[in-house]
Amino acid sequence: MTDLHITSAANPRLKALTALRRRRAREEAGLTMVEGLEELQLALDAGVVPRALYHCPELMPDPHLQAELVDRVRERGAETIRLGRAAFEKVAYREGPDGVLAVVASVTRRCAELPHLDGDAPLVLVSQGVEKPGNLGAMLRTADAAGIDAVIAADPVTDWGNPNLVRASKGTVFSVPVASDDTATTLRWLDERGIALVATTPDTDVEYTEIDYTGPVAIAVGAEKYGLTPEVLTAARHRVRLPMVGHANSLNVATSAAIVVYEAVRQRREQGARRSLSG
Amino acid sequence: MTDLHITSAANPRLKALTALRRRRAREEAGLTMVEGLEELQLALDAGVVPRALYHCPELMPDPHLQAELVDRVRERGAETIRLGRAAFEKVAYREGPDGVLAVVASVTRRCAELPHLDGDAPLVLVSQGVEKPGNLGAMLRTADAAGIDAVIAADPVTDWGNPNLVRASKGTVFSVPVASDDTATTLRWLDERGIALVATTPDTDVEYTEIDYTGPVAIAVGAEKYGLTPEVLTAARHRVRLPMVGHANSLNVATSAAIVVYEAVRQRREQGARRSLSG
Repeated sequence: MTDLHITSAANPRLKALTALRRRRAREEAGLTMVEGLEELQLALDAGVVPRALYHCPELMPDPHLQAELVDRVRERGAETIRLGRAAFEKVAYREGPDGVLAVVASVTRRCAELPHLDGDAPLVLVSQGVEKPGNLGAMLRTADAAGIDAVIAADPVTDWGNPNLVRASKGTVFSVPVASDDTATTLRWLDERGIALVATTPDTDVEYTEIDYTGPVAIAVGAEKYGLTPEVLTAARHRVRLPMVGHANSLNVATSAAIVVYEAVRQRREQGARRSLSG
Repeated sequence: MTDLHITSAANPRLKALTALRRRRAREEAGLTMVEGLEELQLALDAGVVPRALYHCPELMPDPHLQAELVDRVRERGAETIRLGRAAFEKVAYREGPDGVLAVVASVTRRCAELPHLDGDAPLVLVSQGVEKPGNLGAMLRTADAAGIDAVIAADPVTDWGNPNLVRASKGTVFSVPVASDDTATTLRWLDERGIALVATTPDTDVEYTEIDYTGPVAIAVGAEKYGLTPEVLTAARHRVRLPMVGHANSLNVATSAAIVVYEAVRQRREQGARRSLSG
């Protein structure tokens, strides 16, 4: 099978591709982009079926790996399009592109469409109004590593298809069950499932290590500047803070989320170890 | 006092300023840049005395705050230079500049020049070969929040003066005691002070929560791709891993550092609470 081969950076197809950098175009098309060998491999591992793959052998540090990837994508039935260097550099959204970029369906799930939560103690992460794609991507990597059951963006400023988010997530946006919804729906969804909400906020005397995370729990973090809204703080079963002694007095939101999530993991593993000792 | 006022973006002084984007120019001059109101305020809070302040009232969202900042910098004896919009936009290194940029002395401390460690159980963070300025900046915010006694970059790829690092650190690079040195010197410095080295690595069965961090401890994290070198792994008293269950199988290095650092903080606070109960 021979690839379609595009060398002109002015090709209309490539214009439609670069349009996906805009949220509105992504939402209208239900599509986004995954760029880079590592991210794309992770997306494929997570079961993603690309619509199309754009590749440029001249830019690829290791053409063998690229050829493998192109074959793998083709086997899933996706169209593969070879681009000249100038054309690829125009569509690439990151510096130092490595010559692969795929168009894939965006993740546009709502709370109601999340997969059924297995087990008796799901662990959920809620990010309300977080702005920076890098922070959301970092939270997804944490959620993936920690085995979190769902990540919900409440009143999101950034869509899950944001290419910088996809990139920062290292493809985990396709493997972690994510959803986005308004805050009221998110709170109702948690409440209906008996999931206790733990809100992180500086305005409390309870430290995050003082509460029990071994039951069904959702950890909520708020926007970079303003934190969680009163709606979430009021609905929370626990409001907890992270101890901070420094000058800047603010941990990054993704860092805070990771610290609290791993405290939950620690408590759950400790409980598991106790159970298996007594069992 | 009237400011020097520069409107031409071709002014030779501004060329010297943009040269500080290059590591070599920073190291030769011993200078770096701090851009943005928030970062600069934090740097001033940490006692930094700028050499010069470039400001552009037209770009400032709140001219009142800027006027206050300019006065504050002038009181410390720094020269203040007003720039026209085009000139400022040329020297600014971030998108959407807010009209303030200061030239300050770089932090170029070696291990031997670190301040004396107070207390009987210092907590140190070592980052070996970490590449991304954003990751180093994030680690400094964590170090600031957690009250870490020193952060040492061993065999650093990025200098502490890197403007993106300064920015990501939210000015904490000026408040946290940081140093950089080669790995051998760093290990010797820790050893001479009886500080136990804890190396994070996936290649161990010991989880990071299984060891005791209440004594003098240095937590070491390695480069984004390759982790810690054998030199550090061999010298470590403990090698610990973070539990990960996901697909991507790698937490961000700054996230990993934060999780282990806050486990140390948790253990120390718990010990403190026990002591004060029994005391």
